[in-house]
Amino acid sequence: MTRPTRVVQYGVGPIGSAIVKLLSVKRGVKIAGAIDVDKEKVGKDLGDVAGAPKPLGIRISSDADEVLSKAKAEVVLHSTTSYLKEVSTQILKCVKAKSNVISTCEELAYPFETNKKIALQLDRFAKRNGVTVLGTGVNPGFVMDTLPIALTGACQNVTRISVSRIVDASKRRLPLQRKIGAGLSLEEFQRPVKERKVRHVGLEESIRMIASALGWKLDRVEETVEPVIAEADVQNLFLKVAKGKVAGVKQVGRGIVQSREAITLDLQMYVGAKEPRDSVVIEGVPPIDMTIRGGIHGDLATAAIAVNSIPKVLKAKPGLLTMKDLPVLSAIP
Amino acid sequence: MTRPTRVVQYGVGPIGSAIVKLLSVKRGVKIAGAIDVDKEKVGKDLGDVAGAPKPLGIRISSDADEVLSKAKAEVVLHSTTSYLKEVSTQILKCVKAKSNVISTCEELAYPFETNKKIALQLDRFAKRNGVTVLGTGVNPGFVMDTLPIALTGACQNVTRISVSRIVDASKRRLPLQRKIGAGLSLEEFQRPVKERKVRHVGLEESIRMIASALGWKLDRVEETVEPVIAEADVQNLFLKVAKGKVAGVKQVGRGIVQSREAITLDLQMYVGAKEPRDSVVIEGVPPIDMTIRGGIHGDLATAAIAVNSIPKVLKAKPGLLTMKDLPVLSAIP
Repeated sequence: MTRPTRVVQYGVGPIGSAIVKLLSVKRGVKIAGAIDVDKEKVGKDLGDVAGAPKPLGIRISSDADEVLSKAKAEVVLHSTTSYLKEVSTQILKCVKAKSNVISTCEELAYPFETNKKIALQLDRFAKRNGVTVLGTGVNPGFVMDTLPIALTGACQNVTRISVSRIVDASKRRLPLQRKIGAGLSLEEFQRPVKERKVRHVGLEESIRMIASALGWKLDRVEETVEPVIAEADVQNLFLKVAKGKVAGVKQVGRGIVQSREAITLDLQMYVGAKEPRDSVVIEGVPPIDMTIRGGIHGDLATAAIAVNSIPKVLKAKPGLLTMKDLPVLSAIP
Repeated sequence: MTRPTRVVQYGVGPIGSAIVKLLSVKRGVKIAGAIDVDKEKVGKDLGDVAGAPKPLGIRISSDADEVLSKAKAEVVLHSTTSYLKEVSTQILKCVKAKSNVISTCEELAYPFETNKKIALQLDRFAKRNGVTVLGTGVNPGFVMDTLPIALTGACQNVTRISVSRIVDASKRRLPLQRKIGAGLSLEEFQRPVKERKVRHVGLEESIRMIASALGWKLDRVEETVEPVIAEADVQNLFLKVAKGKVAGVKQVGRGIVQSREAITLDLQMYVGAKEPRDSVVIEGVPPIDMTIRGGIHGDLATAAIAVNSIPKVLKAKPGLLTMKDLPVLSAIP
């Protein structure tokens, strides 16, 4: 019998809660603490807040330093926000406590160019403390970067990579449907786009991770966000989108190499999407044309990938790593 | 500028030749020697024998010890036969010369149970000499093991894995079409099956690699080889298969876990296959249903995977590793 791995959950929002529920049924893991600043959650049992089948005997605390120093966790699972500037202090606290960190912060998936200064600081500090920091999740972290990279492993050469992720938002909760603008008029949709509120975070990080894996030097990365217009009335449990109104969003990231669009990531999330799927098309020798029917379920897979990273992160060398640096993940028992 | 990686090619058959052609166009690699026992090849230029665009200035030698000790290669790319018993001495010679080894020997892809004694010996000897030994290729090594394992990384739990690889043999060379029994009568097909001449080597290794990655304990592995019967006359460049004759072979490997068929690998290779493809179906949370249209081209991909392994093997820890232990491969420039 090996000693269970001690884990702290940092952030008990939707993703953090999904991670906690999964951790609570995995062998070889012991939850040793939980951190969240939400006054509604502090002092309550982690299992109750996360929606686990039973209480876990862990009180959520807003005092990160205390939790981290008491828990002496081998790994902190970190899920607070998407932006690295907002979370770097949180991650540094974990590193200072000599805990490895697995974070679903989207901008941490491949931060070496988009947030270079913070990335270097995290890398240095992680190495000095002998721990590993990893940014991961389903997207960024898997569908639009690690999986296409892994497929290029079977190629003698690659000239172009296109990835599409098409998600039917109909079955998702109302807040998400609202977030992608479902039901808005075209005019109403302009404001959240301008305020970058409908934007998925991580497309640029995925493009830069792919380019780095292939040794491609990017001229630049471009990104566009456009509405998807309903071609017919769409009704679901939560709302109705009339024909001609906004059904959701299409966000495209383009990686330009030597003045050529060498990487295209096309993310569509809208109500009534007919053939939800993830697809990767590699132009190269040999060419590869892959499709995952229905697409990989986002929330379930992000929690899975974070938890499945634990054994690989425990064995990894210290520093700030990305998914392309780790051995292939697998579902842990 | 970093110094190019010195490579020796051990075995200049069809796969070895494909590897040499690919190596000759990759940056950062220098071919430093070539070994083959075929009298038709010894003394000739490696580029000419492998079908490279031009001679490479390397004479093929049958004296492995001499080539290995002179070349001082960081990596030996080894492609001689499918059976570990036949190649272990060759690999040990490479290890003794302190070269890392990347081999396409099918039984080396995951030998810890099927060839336990040799595996332990290779592992010990590799560690003692500070080098890494890897068995790889497209199958085993990627399509039916590493790729399904990588997909389970997005799963909270997995109950069953089915992989199919359906290859249209029509476009392959005549010797391969003959090997899979194309054109034989059902009676004529029995003999090569009994003599295990139509058998693909590596299905059991792939099953055991998947089980190991998922922490599943196998009761046993079963394997069947059956003919695929032509449903209509099939004519290709090389031969004709009349309706009712053997078009090729269907080989199924089954991994039994707690009396349940938990892993199914279905490999079909026949003339006139309608929808060639690689597919992975994972029953779990979330489920994953992946298809690669047309399938991944075998010969091209095996050479690619072997060569793309080089940077990962150079960085890996010493010992006998498998594809699931390495960071995800990517196409090298």
